[in-house]
Amino acid sequence: MLIGKAGAAQTKIAAASPERIWVRGRDLTADLMGGTTFTDFVYLLATSRAPTDDQRFFLNLSLVALAEHGLTPSVQAARMTLAADPAALQGAVAAGVLGCGTVILGAADLCRALVDDVLARTRAAGSIDEAALEVVREYRAARRPIPGYGHPLHKPVDPRAERMIALARERRVAGRAVEAATALTKAVAETWGKPLPMNVSMAIAATLVDVGVPPALIRAVPILARTGGLIAHLIEEQETPIGFYLASKGEEAIDHSAAEGASA
Amino acid sequence: MLIGKAGAAQTKIAAASPERIWVRGRDLTADLMGGTTFTDFVYLLATSRAPTDDQRFFLNLSLVALAEHGLTPSVQAARMTLAADPAALQGAVAAGVLGCGTVILGAADLCRALVDDVLARTRAAGSIDEAALEVVREYRAARRPIPGYGHPLHKPVDPRAERMIALARERRVAGRAVEAATALTKAVAETWGKPLPMNVSMAIAATLVDVGVPPALIRAVPILARTGGLIAHLIEEQETPIGFYLASKGEEAIDHSAAEGASA
Amino acid sequence: MLIGKAGAAQTKIAAASPERIWVRGRDLTADLMGGTTFTDFVYLLATSRAPTDDQRFFLNLSLVALAEHGLTPSVQAARMTLAADPAALQGAVAAGVLGCGTVILGAADLCRALVDDVLARTRAAGSIDEAALEVVREYRAARRPIPGYGHPLHKPVDPRAERMIALARERRVAGRAVEAATALTKAVAETWGKPLPMNVSMAIAATLVDVGVPPALIRAVPILARTGGLIAHLIEEQETPIGFYLASKGEEAIDHSAAEGASA
Amino acid sequence: MLIGKAGAAQTKIAAASPERIWVRGRDLTADLMGGTTFTDFVYLLATSRAPTDDQRFFLNLSLVALAEHGLTPSVQAARMTLAADPAALQGAVAAGVLGCGTVILGAADLCRALVDDVLARTRAAGSIDEAALEVVREYRAARRPIPGYGHPLHKPVDPRAERMIALARERRVAGRAVEAATALTKAVAETWGKPLPMNVSMAIAATLVDVGVPPALIRAVPILARTGGLIAHLIEEQETPIGFYLASKGEEAIDHSAAEGASA
Repeated sequence: MLIGKAGAAQTKIAAASPERIWVRGRDLTADLMGGTTFTDFVYLLATSRAPTDDQRFFLNLSLVALAEHGLTPSVQAARMTLAADPAALQGAVAAGVLGCGTVILGAADLCRALVDDVLARTRAAGSIDEAALEVVREYRAARRPIPGYGHPLHKPVDPRAERMIALARERRVAGRAVEAATALTKAVAETWGKPLPMNVSMAIAATLVDVGVPPALIRAVPILARTGGLIAHLIEEQETPIGFYLASKGEEAIDHSAAEGASA
Repeated sequence: MLIGKAGAAQTKIAAASPERIWVRGRDLTADLMGGTTFTDFVYLLATSRAPTDDQRFFLNLSLVALAEHGLTPSVQAARMTLAADPAALQGAVAAGVLGCGTVILGAADLCRALVDDVLARTRAAGSIDEAALEVVREYRAARRPIPGYGHPLHKPVDPRAERMIALARERRVAGRAVEAATALTKAVAETWGKPLPMNVSMAIAATLVDVGVPPALIRAVPILARTGGLIAHLIEEQETPIGFYLASKGEEAIDHSAAEGASA
Repeated sequence: MLIGKAGAAQTKIAAASPERIWVRGRDLTADLMGGTTFTDFVYLLATSRAPTDDQRFFLNLSLVALAEHGLTPSVQAARMTLAADPAALQGAVAAGVLGCGTVILGAADLCRALVDDVLARTRAAGSIDEAALEVVREYRAARRPIPGYGHPLHKPVDPRAERMIALARERRVAGRAVEAATALTKAVAETWGKPLPMNVSMAIAATLVDVGVPPALIRAVPILARTGGLIAHLIEEQETPIGFYLASKGEEAIDHSAAEGASA
Repeated sequence: MLIGKAGAAQTKIAAASPERIWVRGRDLTADLMGGTTFTDFVYLLATSRAPTDDQRFFLNLSLVALAEHGLTPSVQAARMTLAADPAALQGAVAAGVLGCGTVILGAADLCRALVDDVLARTRAAGSIDEAALEVVREYRAARRPIPGYGHPLHKPVDPRAERMIALARERRVAGRAVEAATALTKAVAETWGKPLPMNVSMAIAATLVDVGVPPALIRAVPILARTGGLIAHLIEEQETPIGFYLASKGEEAIDHSAAEGASA
């Protein structure tokens, strides 16, 4: 049975014959292998175009900024999973990728949507600042956390966000999206009555929007980035296993007494 | 409770404080962001060293060679999974990563082990050719498939493997591992009585060994590569959904009659 | 670092000492093993209470109704994943579980919320029928698909839904939730101008609400059910492999020509 | 392309038409829904037969024994994953299932193979005791851990294993597999020079073999069992979140100083 409606039964990404592999209209072995980096290749795969210099620069920058942040929950989940089956590296990577949800690395997509929302309201609101204030007040009224602001560790600023915005200005690519992110920073401080740092997810969303990276790729960037970090942790886990030790320390910190019954 | 023995409770990869993120002894924002590509960063994360020019070249080459091969089983699994929950991109990527098992992309690690085995026997066997023949005959006698040789589509050669080996020779990095892979190609043809192409997994294993990429990273390369391809397919799936259509065509091709009972 | 706020650092589910395992206040080995079925145990684990006869009956019924529906997309994803790594059974089950998203098996939770919505509006609307009509018209106006109605194969009725509702009436447990589901069926037919069958997800949601199964467990039931079906398919895949064949048939049905370039 | 050889393109598990769903030759709605429990249904799905009373009893017993053991690594991985994306329950369950690897819950299959090995050698060895001793000595000589013996918490005995073996004797189903497990217990104590408790994985493998449950289903039992426990923990995580707290406590216990560089 077919679930949903049938659409175009086609793919535009790749096609293979015995002697050749086409990728986005290029011959993989003749045109791409040896002449392109992985970052450029992913950009081509995802968008059908080669990146511009600025797209390449900020895509690399975003991937480097997000790949690694120590023993995050998703890294711990991956390391515990490898400890349980050292032969299934792909299972451990998958367990870590599953932790790239909306609360953590998935926030880049929410930030991109927030920036789009601010920009879409700018004409009616009169200015980006006014639009940002309007949007932030709605989040505040609805008691919703605002994506892209605040970080559990990095206070009063997230150094990665600072660096990305500085590089966007330095390379003269900072445009309306970075302006919206900056306006949101002010609006958040004003509305919440205390500064909340713009975090790396918002900085990535804003700079990638300004250099013209499509939204669907912005959404996927954190997952690719984190896969790089997961691989490093899983290699370390093979040499210096801490997966089960991490779990034992988590377990010890939890009160289990409510599960106990009256001893016989 | 702690499963297994406690070892060193440490990580050498990253450490974060409010104002700084250390990665392998470098300051992430000051030393790495803006000055390194994703490929170089993954190499640093995984090995604690920056790659040499040849390591960078062949790591990029391997990632590009493996990222994409059309609607492979793991890509289909990922696209079906996204169709079932478009909000959970990370779940769809994870489903695809789970398909990077030993039979498919996991073969690079088996190939690396095979090359090591040949090289370890070379002195006793007298030559790499003799060692390769000895190893291949053991696989043949045990009726085990030999990793790195043969491909369901690419016959009589895998163009990606050809290209990689050619680039290794061109850049003068082809060493004993490539020699072992070449010896295995001859030994396989002789022992099986027909040529089986050296495939891309063996070419990656051999060239990465020759440029000094550590085994644990070789094992992980296919998973990182494929994550890049999965992202492209999942972006396409959002625009042109075929996940459920693929499943309907698979289902139609299967005889279900043995599951039926006698109709009332 | 701690992401989010610290809450109660406790679990009420289980606690273990060398000689004893407590589960929800019971001694696992003395009180539960040998005296309880898996279905009852899951109910106890999830809710801290033993099920009533009706809760047991409808929980089993729901699990049986949802466990198996042939070569669904999630089953195919699981079988392809096992084909890629026969040693990692858990990876293949996980790939299948990832397909239990909102579009497919996750619909039971959406149906439960829809029923709750209708019941919450009943007083204001004057009757369950009026409330159902109001809700359905809102979905129609927003061009949103209504959860729990329609099925790609089962037309004009979903026999599993029919059977569940009949059993709910027969056992005299059909209450306001089943009434809401029935009202929705009429409202859908009237609003869309054609009958759409109440499907199994809605029947499960309505009957489980009426016997008092908590919403969080209703949401989880499809995943547990499908795990049972996945296991059977993965056992069959070990004996009669079709995973790669399914993928080849899906691939053949897709037009790849747009990925090709101009041949040299 | 088709990977591997084409075999029989068939499934014997289920077939669906608009008005009927066949499962293993039975009409799902007419013959099974309302008249069978989930445990029985899984047995039917997996084996094409209804379970005997003893198969039902020991399958339920095994599922109950394995479903829950507190905040195990796989439960922690699942809870951390749900914390990162509360909307994707299936992703969190999948992350937990991925932790059912060979080191932990996957051990039941290894135990079953060990029992088979002992029984296969019995005639040549002269007795089950001799065969067990022979096998254990080989493991010892190869410095391999022996599956099914020892537990990080339960010492000097695993109460679940004790209970299962006692029930097998009480219900008079303990046969040659339980005898082999008991012989292994003695052989392990003798060879290692200290008693190692038979753990729950071995008790499950031995009793299920003795009641005639097929090996492929024995291998899958721990995954189904643990899915039940995971669901309970993920329901608790929604009410009392501890996922990120567990990760913070794990992180705190690890020395990160080797990742730091010389401060500027």
